[in-house]
Amino acid sequence: MKLVRYEVDSEPVIGVVSGDGIIRIADLLPEFTEMQQLAAAGPEALDRLRDRMVSAQPTVALEGAKLLAPMERPRNFLAIGMNYLEHCKEGVRLGVVPPEHQVWFNKSTISLSPYNVDIDPGVTRMLDYEVELGVAIGKKARYVSKEEAPAHVFGYFVANDVSARDWQLHSQTWFIGKSFENFGPIGPWIVTPDEVGDPHTLGVRTYVNGELRQNSNTEQLIHNVWEMIEYVSTAYTLEPGDLLLTGTPEGVGHAMIPQAHIGVGDFIRCEIDKLGATENKVVPSTAPRYPELEPHKIARALAEAEECV
Amino acid sequence: MKLVRYEVDSEPVIGVVSGDGIIRIADLLPEFTEMQQLAAAGPEALDRLRDRMVSAQPTVALEGAKLLAPMERPRNFLAIGMNYLEHCKEGVRLGVVPPEHQVWFNKSTISLSPYNVDIDPGVTRMLDYEVELGVAIGKKARYVSKEEAPAHVFGYFVANDVSARDWQLHSQTWFIGKSFENFGPIGPWIVTPDEVGDPHTLGVRTYVNGELRQNSNTEQLIHNVWEMIEYVSTAYTLEPGDLLLTGTPEGVGHAMIPQAHIGVGDFIRCEIDKLGATENKVVPSTAPRYPELEPHKIARALAEAEECV
Repeated sequence: MKLVRYEVDSEPVIGVVSGDGIIRIADLLPEFTEMQQLAAAGPEALDRLRDRMVSAQPTVALEGAKLLAPMERPRNFLAIGMNYLEHCKEGVRLGVVPPEHQVWFNKSTISLSPYNVDIDPGVTRMLDYEVELGVAIGKKARYVSKEEAPAHVFGYFVANDVSARDWQLHSQTWFIGKSFENFGPIGPWIVTPDEVGDPHTLGVRTYVNGELRQNSNTEQLIHNVWEMIEYVSTAYTLEPGDLLLTGTPEGVGHAMIPQAHIGVGDFIRCEIDKLGATENKVVPSTAPRYPELEPHKIARALAEAEECV
Repeated sequence: MKLVRYEVDSEPVIGVVSGDGIIRIADLLPEFTEMQQLAAAGPEALDRLRDRMVSAQPTVALEGAKLLAPMERPRNFLAIGMNYLEHCKEGVRLGVVPPEHQVWFNKSTISLSPYNVDIDPGVTRMLDYEVELGVAIGKKARYVSKEEAPAHVFGYFVANDVSARDWQLHSQTWFIGKSFENFGPIGPWIVTPDEVGDPHTLGVRTYVNGELRQNSNTEQLIHNVWEMIEYVSTAYTLEPGDLLLTGTPEGVGHAMIPQAHIGVGDFIRCEIDKLGATENKVVPSTAPRYPELEPHKIARALAEAEECV
């Protein structure tokens, strides 16, 4: 099933795609009005939904529906870095030291947006794309082994982990350059596991204005989806509706020679087999000004302290 | 004013401390039942609350009230690293490269907890404390200059940015070791800016079993509170109730020679002038097992690829 959120009279509604239409989930299972509730309810609820769909008719045409991000703003919106070998090589060439374990950061939840949102670059001068397989957590996961992990997946989706490379590299934690508004378009839908099968055999691609820039397959993941759920859930509880982005393959603009960041008017399509595609146009920045940042304040303070000795 | 959240019949209620009691805020201003609503309403709402308090009597005794974290789970729970000079020196000695700009990470929101929560170490073998001045955002902040920043502060609080040093240093982004359940006790209350005055003149201290371990003052901040709000709000919108931790001074256990991590039975008190203190006891881990992690998977993949050439 393809699960969507869409707007009716300015209110979010959850639905399931049926042919070229959408069935409102609350018409079939009245207890579910939010995607996070459905995620928390586990696979049994999805089975009931599938059963009821058989005799139901869509009430809204997919074309023309205003789709929202297919999950409400999560408690946490995680993403892993350095998780495709060829992309790691790009990173190492740019000075990143290979981490000892999985390298996670937590995008601001304000970055989450619909699959087709326009991207406002804000104050970055180095805008970039990253196609990523996304995983939505279903039943909460605590101390889950990789063998048990599949039972905790609610579904899969496409994400563009939009990145402001200048701000990302302001510091080693990457967080800030990954967290601008609308830097996390996902969707158009969440696809349930039964329809995806093994998530480690999916082609992932990015096109910029129709030109193929990223072209890999999730079989190239260094840490696979089950290992990711095991690792994070060993540290703390993953909750229903938490979102995990699983890393991007080689081909990002920042690592091209010469570098090829994206800019106003560019159209970015990130697609993954079986899951669909995000489609985002870069629009002019609405930032009132570029900031005058004072760099190296820490290094300067350290140097001055040194002199005082 | 000291603003609290507490439990009545297992439901969270917001209140304001008055002498040795608590006044329920909804008894004075019925429209406010959540702290995030009050934060969003700006300073005018706090002025009205202050006016109404004059003729009101507390309905609950402070002693014995079950205090919760003084803010609902925020959309984002940010913390800055390397922001006190002497602590930077500790970091540099341990191999951290001084970042060019402010170094932010986003703690999992599941780590937020009451000021007196027991700390379960989970799977860490290197548990540590970090006293930090916390800032709760009031009116949403977007492209706010440091001069305008004070108007966006809802209040201040004490935080212990509890850290699993082994997991923190699994990778450069720090996130995972800062995000265990209950690794973010804050409170006991949020203190409004009128009662704090300049937030850059506050003594900050940590005691472990009564022994003074951290002892500094917010005048030592490298990036001050206004610069932090300017920086983050230039990247994206800070929303009402977002929480910012402003960094810890020197004296953490991980940097002591020899290292002195905390363990079961230790009692950690983090206190800040005018704001009160968090008080946390370390309890035995409830982790069912320590994980068998496979380190250096990325480096190994890179080395193997090298050999194939």
